[in-house]
Amino acid sequence: MATVPLVPEDSDHPVVRRVFDDIKATKKIDFIPNIWRALANHPEHLSLCWTRLKAIMAPGKVDALTKEIVALAVSATNGCNYCINSHTAATQKLGLTLEQLGEVLAVVGLFNQMNKLADSFQIEPDIRPKPW
Amino acid sequence: MATVPLVPEDSDHPVVRRVFDDIKATKKIDFIPNIWRALANHPEHLSLCWTRLKAIMAPGKVDALTKEIVALAVSATNGCNYCINSHTAATQKLGLTLEQLGEVLAVVGLFNQMNKLADSFQIEPDIRPKPW
Amino acid sequence: MATVPLVPEDSDHPVVRRVFDDIKATKKIDFIPNIWRALANHPEHLSLCWTRLKAIMAPGKVDALTKEIVALAVSATNGCNYCINSHTAATQKLGLTLEQLGEVLAVVGLFNQMNKLADSFQIEPDIRPKPW
Amino acid sequence: MATVPLVPEDSDHPVVRRVFDDIKATKKIDFIPNIWRALANHPEHLSLCWTRLKAIMAPGKVDALTKEIVALAVSATNGCNYCINSHTAATQKLGLTLEQLGEVLAVVGLFNQMNKLADSFQIEPDIRPKPW
Amino acid sequence: MATVPLVPEDSDHPVVRRVFDDIKATKKIDFIPNIWRALANHPEHLSLCWTRLKAIMAPGKVDALTKEIVALAVSATNGCNYCINSHTAATQKLGLTLEQLGEVLAVVGLFNQMNKLADSFQIEPDIRPKPW
Amino acid sequence: MATVPLVPEDSDHPVVRRVFDDIKATKKIDFIPNIWRALANHPEHLSLCWTRLKAIMAPGKVDALTKEIVALAVSATNGCNYCINSHTAATQKLGLTLEQLGEVLAVVGLFNQMNKLADSFQIEPDIRPKPW
Repeated sequence: MATVPLVPEDSDHPVVRRVFDDIKATKKIDFIPNIWRALANHPEHLSLCWTRLKAIMAPGKVDALTKEIVALAVSATNGCNYCINSHTAATQKLGLTLEQLGEVLAVVGLFNQMNKLADSFQIEPDIRPKPW
Repeated sequence: MATVPLVPEDSDHPVVRRVFDDIKATKKIDFIPNIWRALANHPEHLSLCWTRLKAIMAPGKVDALTKEIVALAVSATNGCNYCINSHTAATQKLGLTLEQLGEVLAVVGLFNQMNKLADSFQIEPDIRPKPW
Repeated sequence: MATVPLVPEDSDHPVVRRVFDDIKATKKIDFIPNIWRALANHPEHLSLCWTRLKAIMAPGKVDALTKEIVALAVSATNGCNYCINSHTAATQKLGLTLEQLGEVLAVVGLFNQMNKLADSFQIEPDIRPKPW
Repeated sequence: MATVPLVPEDSDHPVVRRVFDDIKATKKIDFIPNIWRALANHPEHLSLCWTRLKAIMAPGKVDALTKEIVALAVSATNGCNYCINSHTAATQKLGLTLEQLGEVLAVVGLFNQMNKLADSFQIEPDIRPKPW
Repeated sequence: MATVPLVPEDSDHPVVRRVFDDIKATKKIDFIPNIWRALANHPEHLSLCWTRLKAIMAPGKVDALTKEIVALAVSATNGCNYCINSHTAATQKLGLTLEQLGEVLAVVGLFNQMNKLADSFQIEPDIRPKPW
Repeated sequence: MATVPLVPEDSDHPVVRRVFDDIKATKKIDFIPNIWRALANHPEHLSLCWTRLKAIMAPGKVDALTKEIVALAVSATNGCNYCINSHTAATQKLGLTLEQLGEVLAVVGLFNQMNKLADSFQIEPDIRPKPW
């Protein structure tokens, strides 16, 4: 159960209303996900978060599906249950198949292991990017 | 400084030799990265790790670059410095540009934030994948 | 569901009884929170934890509300649902408003992002505290 | 060593220049910290990060020192060495004494422990915030 | 609720069937735990995970109970609720008493605290293993 | 480089002196590790930490080596470099061989992977401890 009230979808706070309308239009959905309703208790923060998320998640030099896959990999590594659910749904909506999801999560699992082994041994970096 | 000895590249332990040779051939490199030399203190574990990594990272229904991007996202979220270096180098080698890297890391940063906000508010999942 | 039994509030183990009484008196509450009932399966550990928590959380050169805010920031970063709930309640009880909570959590989200970006780029510290 | 180039302080990219100037003016410093120089490889992301950080860290209903203490608590919990250094310096600059720092870090340590104990026992929340 | 279907225990996929049979035989149980049913959506990954887990968890130079205690310590530190439950059960089955569990979790809590204090102060390692 | 001064080993603060003497006597070492010298800036906290660590790490129903193995597993999972070094050294001193260390770290790596897979799939616990 949320620790804060969820601001109603029909809030008449002008900032909240503007952001909520933009969320629906941008995501092509007809409801406001709970995370945004929780954030709306602090309208300025809601606006900052949404504006940034919208800009970062827009397809650029990296496509939208890859971005959602990264979001899922981060969320799984952090063990955030709200986010694992929503980003699994988002990758699915963008066409990721169950088989592909299995491959992505295999990579997530693999490097959570390898990261800890590398830390365990305290080995120094020996492969680094070249000058760009 | 590593907490364990790094097994020499020319080890004559048969399992180590076989794995080291396969690492060089598969990755098309002419040296053995430190992580594998540290793992080689326990040849069976070296073999299990390499066999699995090779199988999971081979291009399948998800391409090699996307897999390396996931590896980088996981490593950055875990703050593993050896792995951040090696996976940044690997994505670069597979063609990721500095501009694309910036986009990927922006997504990594964004969802490390959003994950913690979702946890902070203890909101319940309201968007879930559909039956596959 | 807890993985261990929750020791009854009216336990007659002398150490448990003494700690439980002190918890009620110190926190001015009339029940024993579950975390302490779980810890009471190992009375010595219960006593060590409570004694230390009581000493650290007592107002000193840092006030009680700031300490609870730190507790919440840590709990949110770790994604501990029991602790997020109890420390949100504790900051509320000490007077933190919903608006202030929004500001605190905005900072929590922000630096979970910035931490991972700093790690992602592997940048060296360039701002350090001066000699104290 | 950073995995990306650090954009020169005198970059003539208009977005970078505007943000760098604002960083110096806002923070009253005469150099650009490395984190911003790394972010500047992706000027739009630099701008999004700075704009949001500036807005969130401005004193509001929560004072600037408390915000920096939260930033330090998050950074210590995440083990981010760049950020631990810079936020320790920032709290010091805002007047936190060595003795107060000791108290803050004691709280950080304490709840990293208590969080894991609560998780270990899988106990359900029994203290929750009241309706706001 | 799982984000993927749980493959039925009587799946007739040959790889899944072989692994499921081996899980039952090795663990001496008469059902397939959910984690393996979720992994079975990607039979190759299921097989890789099980083969490795079976090899690593077999008693070697370290006994089975110590290995399960390590598994529990890792799971508690990561806050993974599925795994905390299953490894608490596994250590119990191997004879760990409630009192011993209390001691183990006390150590887990202690070093989650000490780790963060060591990071907080950014102290350099001064105790290192000797040459092996 | 530490963010706080390291209190000299020959400090004449009575609490610090008492704890430092006890550390040397208990651990049978002739110097004070840096973590304790950093903590000594806040003598009360130093005393609380040491008293608790000494009590928890004393052999009880769980032996000293198993406790150090747990400490290492936690430290590796958290990626704390000071602690990974000191606990690897401590397990070595208590007789853990390089081969056994390899097995322990294999388990650490394995469950860091399995934890994230379990979280990724959001599966519900189906194996729980029996009533104790």
